[in-house]
Amino acid sequence: MFKAARIAETLEQVRRQGPLVHNVTNLVAMTLSANALIAVGASPIMSAAPEEAGDLAAISGALVVNMGTLTRDWVEGALAATAGANRAGVPWVLDPVGVGASAFRNETAARLMAERPRIVRGNASEVAAIAGGRAGGKGVDSTLGTDAVADVVTALARSSHAVVVATGAVDLATDGERVVRVANGHPLLTSITASGCALTALIGAWAAVTKDLLEAAVGALAAYGVAAELAAERAEGPGSFQVALLDQLGRLDPATLAERTRVS
Amino acid sequence: MFKAARIAETLEQVRRQGPLVHNVTNLVAMTLSANALIAVGASPIMSAAPEEAGDLAAISGALVVNMGTLTRDWVEGALAATAGANRAGVPWVLDPVGVGASAFRNETAARLMAERPRIVRGNASEVAAIAGGRAGGKGVDSTLGTDAVADVVTALARSSHAVVVATGAVDLATDGERVVRVANGHPLLTSITASGCALTALIGAWAAVTKDLLEAAVGALAAYGVAAELAAERAEGPGSFQVALLDQLGRLDPATLAERTRVS
Amino acid sequence: MFKAARIAETLEQVRRQGPLVHNVTNLVAMTLSANALIAVGASPIMSAAPEEAGDLAAISGALVVNMGTLTRDWVEGALAATAGANRAGVPWVLDPVGVGASAFRNETAARLMAERPRIVRGNASEVAAIAGGRAGGKGVDSTLGTDAVADVVTALARSSHAVVVATGAVDLATDGERVVRVANGHPLLTSITASGCALTALIGAWAAVTKDLLEAAVGALAAYGVAAELAAERAEGPGSFQVALLDQLGRLDPATLAERTRVS
Repeated sequence: MFKAARIAETLEQVRRQGPLVHNVTNLVAMTLSANALIAVGASPIMSAAPEEAGDLAAISGALVVNMGTLTRDWVEGALAATAGANRAGVPWVLDPVGVGASAFRNETAARLMAERPRIVRGNASEVAAIAGGRAGGKGVDSTLGTDAVADVVTALARSSHAVVVATGAVDLATDGERVVRVANGHPLLTSITASGCALTALIGAWAAVTKDLLEAAVGALAAYGVAAELAAERAEGPGSFQVALLDQLGRLDPATLAERTRVS
Repeated sequence: MFKAARIAETLEQVRRQGPLVHNVTNLVAMTLSANALIAVGASPIMSAAPEEAGDLAAISGALVVNMGTLTRDWVEGALAATAGANRAGVPWVLDPVGVGASAFRNETAARLMAERPRIVRGNASEVAAIAGGRAGGKGVDSTLGTDAVADVVTALARSSHAVVVATGAVDLATDGERVVRVANGHPLLTSITASGCALTALIGAWAAVTKDLLEAAVGALAAYGVAAELAAERAEGPGSFQVALLDQLGRLDPATLAERTRVS
Repeated sequence: MFKAARIAETLEQVRRQGPLVHNVTNLVAMTLSANALIAVGASPIMSAAPEEAGDLAAISGALVVNMGTLTRDWVEGALAATAGANRAGVPWVLDPVGVGASAFRNETAARLMAERPRIVRGNASEVAAIAGGRAGGKGVDSTLGTDAVADVVTALARSSHAVVVATGAVDLATDGERVVRVANGHPLLTSITASGCALTALIGAWAAVTKDLLEAAVGALAAYGVAAELAAERAEGPGSFQVALLDQLGRLDPATLAERTRVS
């Protein structure tokens, strides 16, 4: 469905357009997300202040909302941001980190889903929890594979009118009609914190420059997965892997991406 | 008292059980703490929201409370977390960062001590300040060695019924009866921010899998110290030292730990 | 005006005196700022709590206020800190991150300017926005060069009685009378988040040990720029550049700084 050449083109679009991406994100993920966005050529801005989050979302190419470290004030800022994005027609991505781990997270995820994100990205447990099923996560980590939730993911995409992405050893992305599997990536991604959050931030950058949001999600998944594979070749452990991941996101060229991407 | 073989075993337990560790921690330490926990095989979760901190603490193997960047809201979240941990019988560790530097820090440390942490970890100045003595710290950095506070540490362990750990060139850990010195570590640890906080997080992981909490503290001190020594051999400065520290925490095997640990 | 030998001397002063630097800073910049400060020999402390920010500022050698991730609570803490610094005669530095991007940022910058910072550091767009001109920034990134704002910078220094620093390919620093250009640095600095914030933190360290605040700003600009050049020689992308930047800040010696600095 998505040809390698087209995926490579989406990377070129991100690098050329350098979209402004507003992040209402969590405290652990901020730095890595910002650095990943800059590495691919985007301009990150971070703010969860209700006084400005709506304005910033409205002038951005995309908004990323990540509930990893929830607070009351954060929820207020996130809702201001999603309202601003929706008003301005700016696409926004939800990362429901840790949903299923507490009642507060479940309620907040439900409130954010009601604001109609255009893309939802989580691990298998989180996506299952959003869909109302049994999640079985361990805190913010998944205990499920993506294959186990394939039907749930598609049903959620249909009911929510969002592109839904469940990441794992093989990533699954769907708009409810088309289902795409991305087999790039590396197990070392699970050895660093916020690697899923940084991916969600990149999906935001891709959504800012790509009309077809399923294509945006797949482009970001492929680019991130290929960069992770290249980084793993240079890593001696989780510390050097994260360093190499940013290096490779910065160096990744469309030709390499086209060559190495494994999308089906 | 603690044999090298037993210390090595505690690392195996952490890697095998992969405990969930809830962190109510500071904004500077979050990322490094999370990455250190993942590197040794634990699952970190971070939240200081009063709405969920108690629930998360109760389902975790251990709770880590670190007051490095205090706010009113943070105090509320920390107290919710310690209440949840105490109710569920989950061991919790206090890191009283910067106590002695302001009245707000002193009051907060006193409130948290009243909730009866099972382990307290600080530098020599912080432990002295907790014990009510003159601290003499410079902000969050210590101006004392651990030998200067050995008596204070033991007295604090007795009066608080907690394991108390004072870290420095040689680390001191005691439950008020047994006193253990750990001579692993490297001066480069003082060249990066939050290295003490990340150690406290690891003590949480060890406490989740080890009944004897003095043994837990000593196991984490030894593992962290040995990883730091191995990292220092590969470092060219503070930046590469932190990267190598995470790499070595990820690679550390029980045999190497047993061989290099210097506990007396 | 500023001889290379004198600039090298300021680095020696920072290393020898190891000043305590209080930071009321943003969530993305905290870790890099703290690590940069430790690398040059300073002691960072981070707190935006109104309960203690004034006390901490008053016992510090300098205060750094960085509004990158604004909230109501943060503003309260920042104003407590600047009041404490002003009362105690402690020099403070303002980094008006993202001013021009929202009304909330503009109002907050104006309130902080009214508290009379001794040094203001921003990119060209931010400095132009502070001066009341058209900024033209993209979120937190500048779309202007420093030459385009040279007159604005000098006028702002005169009207605010502060040293004003506009950073870019060539950095500009002035107290309204003397104008200094620092041509050190490397384009990779724009490939990592919070590199400007970390520089502002270093200016704080220099301000703590140098009476002439223009000299302080120039010393920090030169040291940071030279460290960035040395780091770039060792980097393969944005990830390894940041690691090398901290390494080189830690290793930088006065002789190398004197040799490589390009100040006019």
